[in-house]
Amino acid sequence: MRPKSHGGSGRFSYDGLDRVMHEKARLGLLTSLASKADGILFTDLKELCQLTDGNLSRHLTVLQEAGLVEIWKGFKGRKPQTLCRLTDDGRRRFLDYVSVLELVVADALDATKAARQKKRPAPEGFSPA
Amino acid sequence: MRPKSHGGSGRFSYDGLDRVMHEKARLGLLTSLASKADGILFTDLKELCQLTDGNLSRHLTVLQEAGLVEIWKGFKGRKPQTLCRLTDDGRRRFLDYVSVLELVVADALDATKAARQKKRPAPEGFSPA
Repeated sequence: MRPKSHGGSGRFSYDGLDRVMHEKARLGLLTSLASKADGILFTDLKELCQLTDGNLSRHLTVLQEAGLVEIWKGFKGRKPQTLCRLTDDGRRRFLDYVSVLELVVADALDATKAARQKKRPAPEGFSPA
Repeated sequence: MRPKSHGGSGRFSYDGLDRVMHEKARLGLLTSLASKADGILFTDLKELCQLTDGNLSRHLTVLQEAGLVEIWKGFKGRKPQTLCRLTDDGRRRFLDYVSVLELVVADALDATKAARQKKRPAPEGFSPA
């Protein structure tokens, strides 16, 4: 999962950060769904991720269309219920995504460690844009 | 940097994932800039992050307006050059962001470990939506 090139071109392009999964709200949804193989009810997911009905529906549609999440309809008594869970392929792809995220975190921590102590005057020969 | 609530409401809302920094291309830009306290030339940044002139300019403007990045203008001989570097505040805020990202990765790995072995029939009482 490391990028093809390490030292130069594209070193920080992180191609594996699929935008469908990387979006902040969807990242939260996928992480919560990853913890429950049996799925999570729409109402609980709303609470866990602090989303409105409309936003949750919209993000679930994106995830479903990408083949990451499956949606099931049922009833509790007469009350309709919606259950959401990761597909098997969704779980695999999410793990791949997370491994790229791990790399980003490692890069960022390495980077800030390396640069931490330096004192920084205005760069020589440059003026503020 | 952990979210306020651990077990329930908002557990997976990851409020610290600032959308300005979380966007995929900008995350790459910030990570590369974090590694060079003295800044990186526009042309090198383009290469490292595999962005076009237009995209790089657009993302740098967003980062500059958010106070994360500073832009300096200079010359090499007669050739104009642009240098980009993290502000001190930008470095701090990026580190905060990265610590939330670490939490997401830890949550996701915990989640997938916990749920890995389960066999999953269709959920009882539900039908596909």
